[in-house]
Amino acid sequence: MRQVKTLGLLGTGVIGGGWAARALHFGIDVIASDVKPEMENWLRGAVENAEPALARLTSAPLPPKGRLSFTTNLREMAERADFIQENIPEQLPLKQRILAEASRHAAPDVIIASSTSGLMPSDLQRDMVAPERFLVAHPFNPVYLLPLVELVGGKATAASTIEAAAVYFRYIGMHPLPVRREVPGHLTDRLQEALWREILHMVNDGTATTGELDESIIYGPGLRWAAMGTNLIYHLAGGETGMRHMLAQFGPCLKWPWTRLEAPELTESLIDRMVEGTQAQAAGRSIRELERLRDDYLVAVQQALRQYDIGAGSTLRALEERLYADAAKSAQALDIDAPKPLRLIDTVVRPEWVDYNAHMTDAQYLTVFGDAMDVLYRLIGIDAGYRKGGRMFYDVETHIKYLKEVKAGEGICVETQVLAADAKRLHVFHALRRRADGELLATGEQMHLHVDTAAAKAAALGTAVRARLDRIAKAHAGLARPVQAGRRIGDRNV
Amino acid sequence: MRQVKTLGLLGTGVIGGGWAARALHFGIDVIASDVKPEMENWLRGAVENAEPALARLTSAPLPPKGRLSFTTNLREMAERADFIQENIPEQLPLKQRILAEASRHAAPDVIIASSTSGLMPSDLQRDMVAPERFLVAHPFNPVYLLPLVELVGGKATAASTIEAAAVYFRYIGMHPLPVRREVPGHLTDRLQEALWREILHMVNDGTATTGELDESIIYGPGLRWAAMGTNLIYHLAGGETGMRHMLAQFGPCLKWPWTRLEAPELTESLIDRMVEGTQAQAAGRSIRELERLRDDYLVAVQQALRQYDIGAGSTLRALEERLYADAAKSAQALDIDAPKPLRLIDTVVRPEWVDYNAHMTDAQYLTVFGDAMDVLYRLIGIDAGYRKGGRMFYDVETHIKYLKEVKAGEGICVETQVLAADAKRLHVFHALRRRADGELLATGEQMHLHVDTAAAKAAALGTAVRARLDRIAKAHAGLARPVQAGRRIGDRNV
Repeated sequence: MRQVKTLGLLGTGVIGGGWAARALHFGIDVIASDVKPEMENWLRGAVENAEPALARLTSAPLPPKGRLSFTTNLREMAERADFIQENIPEQLPLKQRILAEASRHAAPDVIIASSTSGLMPSDLQRDMVAPERFLVAHPFNPVYLLPLVELVGGKATAASTIEAAAVYFRYIGMHPLPVRREVPGHLTDRLQEALWREILHMVNDGTATTGELDESIIYGPGLRWAAMGTNLIYHLAGGETGMRHMLAQFGPCLKWPWTRLEAPELTESLIDRMVEGTQAQAAGRSIRELERLRDDYLVAVQQALRQYDIGAGSTLRALEERLYADAAKSAQALDIDAPKPLRLIDTVVRPEWVDYNAHMTDAQYLTVFGDAMDVLYRLIGIDAGYRKGGRMFYDVETHIKYLKEVKAGEGICVETQVLAADAKRLHVFHALRRRADGELLATGEQMHLHVDTAAAKAAALGTAVRARLDRIAKAHAGLARPVQAGRRIGDRNV
Repeated sequence: MRQVKTLGLLGTGVIGGGWAARALHFGIDVIASDVKPEMENWLRGAVENAEPALARLTSAPLPPKGRLSFTTNLREMAERADFIQENIPEQLPLKQRILAEASRHAAPDVIIASSTSGLMPSDLQRDMVAPERFLVAHPFNPVYLLPLVELVGGKATAASTIEAAAVYFRYIGMHPLPVRREVPGHLTDRLQEALWREILHMVNDGTATTGELDESIIYGPGLRWAAMGTNLIYHLAGGETGMRHMLAQFGPCLKWPWTRLEAPELTESLIDRMVEGTQAQAAGRSIRELERLRDDYLVAVQQALRQYDIGAGSTLRALEERLYADAAKSAQALDIDAPKPLRLIDTVVRPEWVDYNAHMTDAQYLTVFGDAMDVLYRLIGIDAGYRKGGRMFYDVETHIKYLKEVKAGEGICVETQVLAADAKRLHVFHALRRRADGELLATGEQMHLHVDTAAAKAAALGTAVRARLDRIAKAHAGLARPVQAGRRIGDRNV
């Protein structure tokens, strides 16, 4: 197959716009054709809307963006494209006619793909020139973010077409899934449709609202489905004997009225297929190993959702607010007048803080020192209300000395000493220690400047905050100055 | 309802173990009862296995862990518990008998909940003392990580029981979903079961393997279902008029053979319910706003999966490997003998790098300097092969000066100067600049030590690497020393 430098689009709706955004982002030029000239503006808007999310998908270096052009002339598009993707309305005669026309203008080695959700490739390729280069390539909305694309050949499709298309789709960051045989709805939409029709029944008979039915998925099975499908999940649920045990235990439920869809008979041959299939998916990994993997991603996904305060991420947020509120009481219990460094952090090194050698990453030390500062700020009365007044501390300088390796799972604490404080400046020294034996693992010396954020310049501390900070500075005034403080990089004396 | 200080468990299988792990983690004592004494060891193992993932779920401060005890005496458990959760096998007569027995020993204000997947609460509570305190509370595996718990009352259940149970489940970090009426399979399992039976049909007739069917979900709709359900997703797919448009467009497909499950008739009243339901879910947010939210979490979820190299995370990883490989060619084009700092990074400040004020976080500066070091290492020949030999550079000291605010979306670059290098030490200086005008935004001075990782001590560089590093050091020897290098914190002279 020819290298895809230019993608041709037939039709520019939501799906066409998604294909354009994805291809352009990964350096492929796009020429889009639509009979309606007003679709050009719509398409450019759709590409622009996709950009913020696409730009965050990976920090890996990208090639220069592709160029987008638009034409109302199908022939011009078909002659310039190296790969054509059709996304016009789901009407078989219309698709047949337009695909046939495109095939007359495109060179015979140009692959032509249809985004159809459910029409059959054998029907679509019927009137085409060189139908062997045709396939269904069914994506999912938003096309620019979801990696799945189902690849389905018709009776006239060459096997090499599927393979070549898969190479191209991988290049633009997708996961091509070749489908063995053409069936209405391919694979994914059949599964989605079964769930959707059960939803319609339950809304129809008043069992639940749309919102309740969405909740019934997103706080439970939906989190699992982000990375493991029903089959592998049920294999795990079966314990050490996996799917076979699961089918023995839950087989009888297939006769129960848990859905209006009747199950096939659970024959020995079906059981064997299910067991062989899931064994292949397990690929030699034990149930225990797979459980760990499942647990790992379930934690990571919930943490990912937390930042957007959505679904299980909102649940986690609400839990944390309660936990922090409970803990705030104990932080208030710290004695700020005691002549000793303040133990502001007491925690365990989390697996996501470490690199592939299981050592805490350099940047994470700074995050931990930042967490200590957050506690210190709360202690002296700098809270959300204070910050709303447009005043806060900025870190202007940090000097870290990495003394010992810190490993995942280790208990650590941060003890913070105020070296100096005045109306605008706060000079602190953090000692990161192993909790078990107090061993010094790293030090962080920092200068923080109190600023008026609107004016972006230094500003004096509020009176009450200044008073509490001075109490700490006074309590720490008699402490020995840590030997690592006030040093230059490369000093040999510590 | 009484405060839940002690959770009583009836039955200790996978679900009972999950309940135990979750409750203990959030500071609740657990007394588990099982007729088989050997289950105590099993249960303690299950709690232990759950701990690593649970420990990572949140970094918020936790109360002291609860204590776990075990008894073969149901009565002892029932007398000590403040809340009883039953998790014995799914046999109605067995559950009825055991629940009735527990209800005779537990005080009447102790809520008793059953974890049943599909049995009806009215049947289960039939023989109980004070059946108004009984409900179904159906969790999902792994119970210690998935927040969903369906709450279903029977005919004799008091509304206050559902409310009080919800308070307790929220306390242990869950999302209680009250179900309006008892139906076989509650809500979630009905939806899961429809999908599952469609899977069994497709495996049975040879359309697809279990692995292909799992792929058809996890790379597409499964990612969406992590935070938005089918109803809200279809509302988005409908464009500006949402669900109503979607039903008009895809209504006819309900007659198509996309699944063996027949849909209900799409009456005006069903359409109204679907539209009203999804309007309520949208809660005044426009389609465009919801799309942005969907895009945000889809990116975040894929990045979360990347670290575990699973599902869409593997796809993203493969894409990035290709992008880095493509970029490595351009890095090789850097002239290491030129008498000027090496421009190692040229990128854009990404939204996840900034704090709520849209400024790059302190720790992120260090990450950017670390990225520059990674490129430098590749330039001098330190690659994965070299590191496999047990030699690498460790950062031992870093001094950052934050000079200007750096905002999301800004183009930035890092220019790195080698200040000194010998057989074991590499002293570098990074200048972080705004790409547009070259303005200096921050500086980072670092000392790196070349170590033998197994012996954990300094070691001499390999010959070829040393030679390339010396070429750079020689080329940089004549450059002016940056004024920020070699300073102490608080020096006023820069």
